[in-house]
Amino acid sequence: MKRIITFGEIMMRLNPEGYLRFVQADKFEATYAGGEANVAVSLCNYGMDAAFVSKVPAHEIGQAAVNELRRYGVDTSLMIRGGDRLGIYFAEKGASQRASKVIYDRANSAISLAKASEFDWEKIFAGADWFHWTGITPALGGELPAICLEACKAAKKLGLTISCDLNYRKKLWTREEAGKVMAELVPYVDVCIANEEDAKDVFGIAATDTDLNTGKLSHEGYISVAKQLTERFGCKKVAITLRGSISASDNDWAGMLYSDGKASFSPTYRVHIVDRVGGGDSFGGGLIYALLSGYDDQKAINFAVAASCLKHSIDHDFNMMSVSEVESLAAGNTSGRVQR
Amino acid sequence: MKRIITFGEIMMRLNPEGYLRFVQADKFEATYAGGEANVAVSLCNYGMDAAFVSKVPAHEIGQAAVNELRRYGVDTSLMIRGGDRLGIYFAEKGASQRASKVIYDRANSAISLAKASEFDWEKIFAGADWFHWTGITPALGGELPAICLEACKAAKKLGLTISCDLNYRKKLWTREEAGKVMAELVPYVDVCIANEEDAKDVFGIAATDTDLNTGKLSHEGYISVAKQLTERFGCKKVAITLRGSISASDNDWAGMLYSDGKASFSPTYRVHIVDRVGGGDSFGGGLIYALLSGYDDQKAINFAVAASCLKHSIDHDFNMMSVSEVESLAAGNTSGRVQR
Amino acid sequence: MKRIITFGEIMMRLNPEGYLRFVQADKFEATYAGGEANVAVSLCNYGMDAAFVSKVPAHEIGQAAVNELRRYGVDTSLMIRGGDRLGIYFAEKGASQRASKVIYDRANSAISLAKASEFDWEKIFAGADWFHWTGITPALGGELPAICLEACKAAKKLGLTISCDLNYRKKLWTREEAGKVMAELVPYVDVCIANEEDAKDVFGIAATDTDLNTGKLSHEGYISVAKQLTERFGCKKVAITLRGSISASDNDWAGMLYSDGKASFSPTYRVHIVDRVGGGDSFGGGLIYALLSGYDDQKAINFAVAASCLKHSIDHDFNMMSVSEVESLAAGNTSGRVQR
Amino acid sequence: MKRIITFGEIMMRLNPEGYLRFVQADKFEATYAGGEANVAVSLCNYGMDAAFVSKVPAHEIGQAAVNELRRYGVDTSLMIRGGDRLGIYFAEKGASQRASKVIYDRANSAISLAKASEFDWEKIFAGADWFHWTGITPALGGELPAICLEACKAAKKLGLTISCDLNYRKKLWTREEAGKVMAELVPYVDVCIANEEDAKDVFGIAATDTDLNTGKLSHEGYISVAKQLTERFGCKKVAITLRGSISASDNDWAGMLYSDGKASFSPTYRVHIVDRVGGGDSFGGGLIYALLSGYDDQKAINFAVAASCLKHSIDHDFNMMSVSEVESLAAGNTSGRVQR
Amino acid sequence: MKRIITFGEIMMRLNPEGYLRFVQADKFEATYAGGEANVAVSLCNYGMDAAFVSKVPAHEIGQAAVNELRRYGVDTSLMIRGGDRLGIYFAEKGASQRASKVIYDRANSAISLAKASEFDWEKIFAGADWFHWTGITPALGGELPAICLEACKAAKKLGLTISCDLNYRKKLWTREEAGKVMAELVPYVDVCIANEEDAKDVFGIAATDTDLNTGKLSHEGYISVAKQLTERFGCKKVAITLRGSISASDNDWAGMLYSDGKASFSPTYRVHIVDRVGGGDSFGGGLIYALLSGYDDQKAINFAVAASCLKHSIDHDFNMMSVSEVESLAAGNTSGRVQR
Amino acid sequence: MKRIITFGEIMMRLNPEGYLRFVQADKFEATYAGGEANVAVSLCNYGMDAAFVSKVPAHEIGQAAVNELRRYGVDTSLMIRGGDRLGIYFAEKGASQRASKVIYDRANSAISLAKASEFDWEKIFAGADWFHWTGITPALGGELPAICLEACKAAKKLGLTISCDLNYRKKLWTREEAGKVMAELVPYVDVCIANEEDAKDVFGIAATDTDLNTGKLSHEGYISVAKQLTERFGCKKVAITLRGSISASDNDWAGMLYSDGKASFSPTYRVHIVDRVGGGDSFGGGLIYALLSGYDDQKAINFAVAASCLKHSIDHDFNMMSVSEVESLAAGNTSGRVQR
Repeated sequence: MKRIITFGEIMMRLNPEGYLRFVQADKFEATYAGGEANVAVSLCNYGMDAAFVSKVPAHEIGQAAVNELRRYGVDTSLMIRGGDRLGIYFAEKGASQRASKVIYDRANSAISLAKASEFDWEKIFAGADWFHWTGITPALGGELPAICLEACKAAKKLGLTISCDLNYRKKLWTREEAGKVMAELVPYVDVCIANEEDAKDVFGIAATDTDLNTGKLSHEGYISVAKQLTERFGCKKVAITLRGSISASDNDWAGMLYSDGKASFSPTYRVHIVDRVGGGDSFGGGLIYALLSGYDDQKAINFAVAASCLKHSIDHDFNMMSVSEVESLAAGNTSGRVQR
Repeated sequence: MKRIITFGEIMMRLNPEGYLRFVQADKFEATYAGGEANVAVSLCNYGMDAAFVSKVPAHEIGQAAVNELRRYGVDTSLMIRGGDRLGIYFAEKGASQRASKVIYDRANSAISLAKASEFDWEKIFAGADWFHWTGITPALGGELPAICLEACKAAKKLGLTISCDLNYRKKLWTREEAGKVMAELVPYVDVCIANEEDAKDVFGIAATDTDLNTGKLSHEGYISVAKQLTERFGCKKVAITLRGSISASDNDWAGMLYSDGKASFSPTYRVHIVDRVGGGDSFGGGLIYALLSGYDDQKAINFAVAASCLKHSIDHDFNMMSVSEVESLAAGNTSGRVQR
Repeated sequence: MKRIITFGEIMMRLNPEGYLRFVQADKFEATYAGGEANVAVSLCNYGMDAAFVSKVPAHEIGQAAVNELRRYGVDTSLMIRGGDRLGIYFAEKGASQRASKVIYDRANSAISLAKASEFDWEKIFAGADWFHWTGITPALGGELPAICLEACKAAKKLGLTISCDLNYRKKLWTREEAGKVMAELVPYVDVCIANEEDAKDVFGIAATDTDLNTGKLSHEGYISVAKQLTERFGCKKVAITLRGSISASDNDWAGMLYSDGKASFSPTYRVHIVDRVGGGDSFGGGLIYALLSGYDDQKAINFAVAASCLKHSIDHDFNMMSVSEVESLAAGNTSGRVQR
Repeated sequence: MKRIITFGEIMMRLNPEGYLRFVQADKFEATYAGGEANVAVSLCNYGMDAAFVSKVPAHEIGQAAVNELRRYGVDTSLMIRGGDRLGIYFAEKGASQRASKVIYDRANSAISLAKASEFDWEKIFAGADWFHWTGITPALGGELPAICLEACKAAKKLGLTISCDLNYRKKLWTREEAGKVMAELVPYVDVCIANEEDAKDVFGIAATDTDLNTGKLSHEGYISVAKQLTERFGCKKVAITLRGSISASDNDWAGMLYSDGKASFSPTYRVHIVDRVGGGDSFGGGLIYALLSGYDDQKAINFAVAASCLKHSIDHDFNMMSVSEVESLAAGNTSGRVQR
Repeated sequence: MKRIITFGEIMMRLNPEGYLRFVQADKFEATYAGGEANVAVSLCNYGMDAAFVSKVPAHEIGQAAVNELRRYGVDTSLMIRGGDRLGIYFAEKGASQRASKVIYDRANSAISLAKASEFDWEKIFAGADWFHWTGITPALGGELPAICLEACKAAKKLGLTISCDLNYRKKLWTREEAGKVMAELVPYVDVCIANEEDAKDVFGIAATDTDLNTGKLSHEGYISVAKQLTERFGCKKVAITLRGSISASDNDWAGMLYSDGKASFSPTYRVHIVDRVGGGDSFGGGLIYALLSGYDDQKAINFAVAASCLKHSIDHDFNMMSVSEVESLAAGNTSGRVQR
Repeated sequence: MKRIITFGEIMMRLNPEGYLRFVQADKFEATYAGGEANVAVSLCNYGMDAAFVSKVPAHEIGQAAVNELRRYGVDTSLMIRGGDRLGIYFAEKGASQRASKVIYDRANSAISLAKASEFDWEKIFAGADWFHWTGITPALGGELPAICLEACKAAKKLGLTISCDLNYRKKLWTREEAGKVMAELVPYVDVCIANEEDAKDVFGIAATDTDLNTGKLSHEGYISVAKQLTERFGCKKVAITLRGSISASDNDWAGMLYSDGKASFSPTYRVHIVDRVGGGDSFGGGLIYALLSGYDDQKAINFAVAASCLKHSIDHDFNMMSVSEVESLAAGNTSGRVQR
């Protein structure tokens, strides 16, 4: 069985029930999520052996985060206990013209204050095939950029494939900071995942002719972004998700996988959204599964986009879909007929 | 007041809240439902006198099923108490491209193990005008095929109109078994209800030129199915529901009523789905009401389709609509404006 | 800071959870709302100083209504305590072709039995800039028509701008009663708000060429209604909301502001509805904010319509939106992308 | 099977979840209850044929009240539809030293405005063995005192046993009004049920040596009250419940049945309260069952008190206990061991 | 780290919310539990390495059971997938004099139909120190008695300590069947756990002078039971739980551990019950932890009883307590003061 | 009307539903609370004019805290907006022998990082009669000790009465730090509130002969503590709460007020706990009300203890009781009989 190591922050996610706004809520649903943890859960749901590396406080709230991962099969034996707090993010679900809203309360989390000396990367990567991280991890600051660099070097040395979702977060660092740090890290990345904003925010690499709000997508623009990333950092593959935001309730969703100068585009799905947080991570999870399973680019991008299309129909961050369910959609079964 | 006897299984339905998947749920909504029970509730909501015949265990879970029927006015005085368990089905609501999913746990239910000697059909049918059952009932196995046959014979003898919804369930029996048993029973049926799949699955009678998944409907194909059913079994009327599955969230919905060589088609409604389980049963309920009320075919199919269109907007299996509400939609009022 | 006085009834609103019908519900969400109270909350959310004048019983249910207003910043210091009951309305949310339904149980509420002697309008209006009421208030009967008249006279005397939403409620009074009473009151009104039905129901002023159910809107018709209202009662401005009811789940929504012979139309929004009760009131709130802020007619109607468009995405009557959120939509940002 | 007719008001009961106070609640559990309806449900749970006579509005809220009764087997075929509103009561659960609180909003309910001409008592009582009402029914005012008198006369004429729970409600009428009306009605009563306060409030008949708050009970005092009631009105039996209020969480509970100059006392139970509303009604239900079943006085009072003891452990007004469960407690099984 | 293998059935537990009776519930909390699974979770909470061996269907409901175990750290890698259904039990919480009630729907579960050939016990026990099962496992019938025998033989051969909780279930088998099967199995047991009823039901070994319902406990009687078990089957240790059922809300709870002719009694705790299902299993979990940790008998029984005392304060079957929390109570800290 | 200024931190409180442990919860009830805010709400519930001074972030979570205070009538016009986060505390409710548990996540909250320059105390105290703070406020660190000192000086200068609840929190500072800071602040305090632990933790002033866990209370010991506080810091009055922790479910509760060498003891209440968090604050609220109302010491301590006794029966931190409800208990009405 293929083994994947993911590394990053896991937070408590607190969201009001249904479509209530923050100020209307007197009850919050509590789940535990984070970009890399979400990918690990996707991979476990596809039957792979995924571990999540992070640091959480040695109290019950930290334990609850560990438990949520264990529940879905993630190997949590590599997690470090310590520090004072688990990061929190508040998520309010939008609808129609009203946007979803996220308030972060993640400063000073256990992982953000972790020390490089706490991680023995060669030991962590023992027996693993793949290493996945996102741009959020170094953005946490402190020793994290250095820790990420060490991890990448160790992974490269041990022959793991490395994937990274650029995932720019403007609340965590400036474009300048991101650009500087990521430029050191991305050269280690084999599979680079981005959306059209990330590449621009982090590296100033722009997709031409795209209007994010109207959702008009230009294939040429995306190819150009992928090409620039490949040329600048030597990534073997670049995957870009294409979101057309019609409203907070309805989106178009597609993706492109670029390698060896060739771009493969998935079909575009019109999704009626239940919860779109974690949509990008479910794309990453699908892509890693597909590539580790030896799919060709077209089949891989189709799987990754079908997987993440389905994520939009599921509450909370994790993508609770099986391989057969994703394959069914990728094969064109979009009708949603009752499975008895 | 017209009196209708329905016969079949009532199960506990357990569904996660909202759009949660089974593995995410730690709470289930419990209702009690079954194809024929759902029809009985529809008819009571239209002011008719409907009774439901079945067998449930003599414990609180069995009683809860009885209570749910009584709550909505169904006559439960003919129900038998005994056996060990009430069948259960788990229902997960799909959304967008993710299909709804049903897991049955109904083997060895009280009704499936019932004996023919427990039913005195002439007594049961005393004072009744109509007998309704579905293909699920004989599919339960054991003595049920024989019991259905006895029921049909008694109903025929006493002059009741008999309706049957073919309702093929592949988890309960094979197409061969179904075809054999139903071929003995359907000759007693006056009003045969089906969807395009049922007729094919049970009797190999196919609708031509229809793609279930894309939802493209061929009127000619449906007429051909109805004609074949009429000719083969002598049914007086054949009603077929036409579902176009755009996604798990949006469906097209229409129906056809065929009699005396003439087909009447309803308008097609685009429904935004709250809960589609029970949609077919609500069609049956509407149709029986309309026919018992002496509506002509066009008015009857329009009522039945409007009734079942509205069902899709209601949670759980039962169709909680009044005659006036259905009539309002059938009359063309599709705007959904607030009724103050 | 601008100060607005609103006057009317506040009721307990009881609605089943989600899309359950009344007869399925064994739990009701309780909020507190009313046309004028809803406007006051909107204005507080925009940072204005709004007070609500009414009478509620001196028991905990009355207090809960006061508390809900205080929670969102409404000045409740002018409210009178007394009487026996708080009015109640039951609200059932529709979906797809099934209409929402409201059952009123508001007779004999504390405010409907209030006496003119309980209100010292000159004191109430001290320091205020604007007075808002709706046609529901005099429709409550008893001394309310007289009280409204006194209020209007005092407001006029003190130089407040007066706005009125015609808001015809056929359960409260006949068209004849409404027409007679409102004809005395509307001459005091500076800003008259209506939908196309109100003007017709109350004053027999019809919008030509409009089919409410199909949602086809005739701009000319609305201008004609506004012109007639202006000419007949001397209103300075007339605002009309334009609702196209596609279904209970989807509506088109727009508005027009007419003054000095000139009509300004907003863009039309296709809204996917979370809760449309209070939609009209949120338009009033947005309009008053815009006019008090000195916006020109086009900017004002755009703000009011954007505000009320967003209301449709929020549960319960109150419109929980900030000025910046409304401005963002009014500026054309309809994509609903996640705000992190 | 014995048939019992009960007559009175059924209301919507709205209570906050758990121990929340009214002003903390934003959700209410909705059930439907009333002194006489509660008795009818008890009797159906014991396998008897109980009907409830009342009037409810012809809308969904009225229907929901009917449905709740049907759900538990009550015959609702005698209920009248009409009028404007269903009475409501808000119930807040106390705990420890904090008392439970009830706010009534029942004025102008459909039943309180019902006309004598709407009730054909001889038809209503056809086939019945017993008639039960409480002092709340005439207290509703309007024609209710006269209707109760007609009902009692008809019941007497047809040979039914008549029971009445005095149930004085100070919010509905004064002691003087109650005393005058009840003095005309109680002479028809065979079985009179009271607590020590009722007899005093309605007829000035006092239990000596009892301190309601400390819960110290004097057997002699209760016998004296019963004797006086018997002598003054000719009741054959008088039953008195004895509540010792230790706190809102813990009560002592016992009862006495007096007939032919002889008093039978039940054991006293220390109850840990889940919900005590409906406790007195469950005593009435148990007593009627016991007497209709031919139990002697000691066995009857033991059954009635065991039944009502158990009610205190059940949420909402209805006493959901079977005969065998009550018999088990009456036989001394107080241990509450798990029944597997 | 000590490794414990537990073997038995895991079921879905469905319980109404709060104190609702089954027939009042329209929502059930779903957890997954079983006597041996509960022990495994206890041990994981104490930091040990516990695995659970069973068979569950290869569908989402079976997976949810696995997930619940994984969530709390149980090793589920030995579980077998297959069969048709997961057993279910419905649990209704009692209060005061009303007993809790359990309805089992476990016939034909995947584990009850498992084959001996599916279990390779020597492989299962590799690296393990302890094997725990209960009398429920062979009571499931089919090949389970034989499977248990094989397991015991293998465990004995490999030098594991074997513990068994007699746990007689009269719904699963008769006393005669139990006696016969268990007499073959218990000779392999090192640590035998029972309550006073089990020993009597299974082997006819009675505790003298004990009245289960009044909760009066005779120390001599328990010692006599333990002595008989030791002598008859050669168990090294016998542990007996002592429950005094004051009511469904309050119990006394204590235990005895007997070995080498010497009985150690724990203190008796008066517990105010939140949920007592799983109480016995939490005793087993505590005892195994204590014995594996090398505690002497007095310390072991004190730990086991403190652990299970605390279980009564926790909802659902699993005992979610840490070693330090149990130790704190065992050390005499019964005050329940807030831990900040 | 008397005006009270309270100063401190308000946090988001997140607690699992019912008795669930943290690791079992997937939903948290969110309320907003803090020692001084709780006192302000108590005072508003008694009809006084209380303002709360603090700093909360300018986002929706901060606003929700403000709204919760406004809802219950607290004047929030003095609150400062800014900073990054609102402090959070997680609260798990204990039962029986299982203690309640609180996990704080309050570091770096907006108020803890507030600057002295943000508070203009003379302006804040304009028109006020009383200033209340607790030992938690300076324990937050940063400039808070200095801010408290400035506040006390300004309050003293303007003639306000100053009360302080010592409220030692070991997670916030050491005993040494507390002792040093509080020794500078308490000399300004007129009314000092403490429990027997606080005085010892902060100032090393011990109550003799008291065993906190067994709840045995020595009156002499408390008097000795009060006397020492008075003599050392010149406080005019010292109030001490006396909690006897029988279990997490049941406590004894009493209090003492000491002034001019004389101690007044309240009665002791046995409370059955719904939620004890905020119990001490409700004592403070009751005491300030009583003293501002001119009650003598005995009446004041009786009111304060009755108020806080009742708090234990109410969910969440705020004490939602009216003066008349408290007076009723203080007058000896402990029976908890239903108030209709």
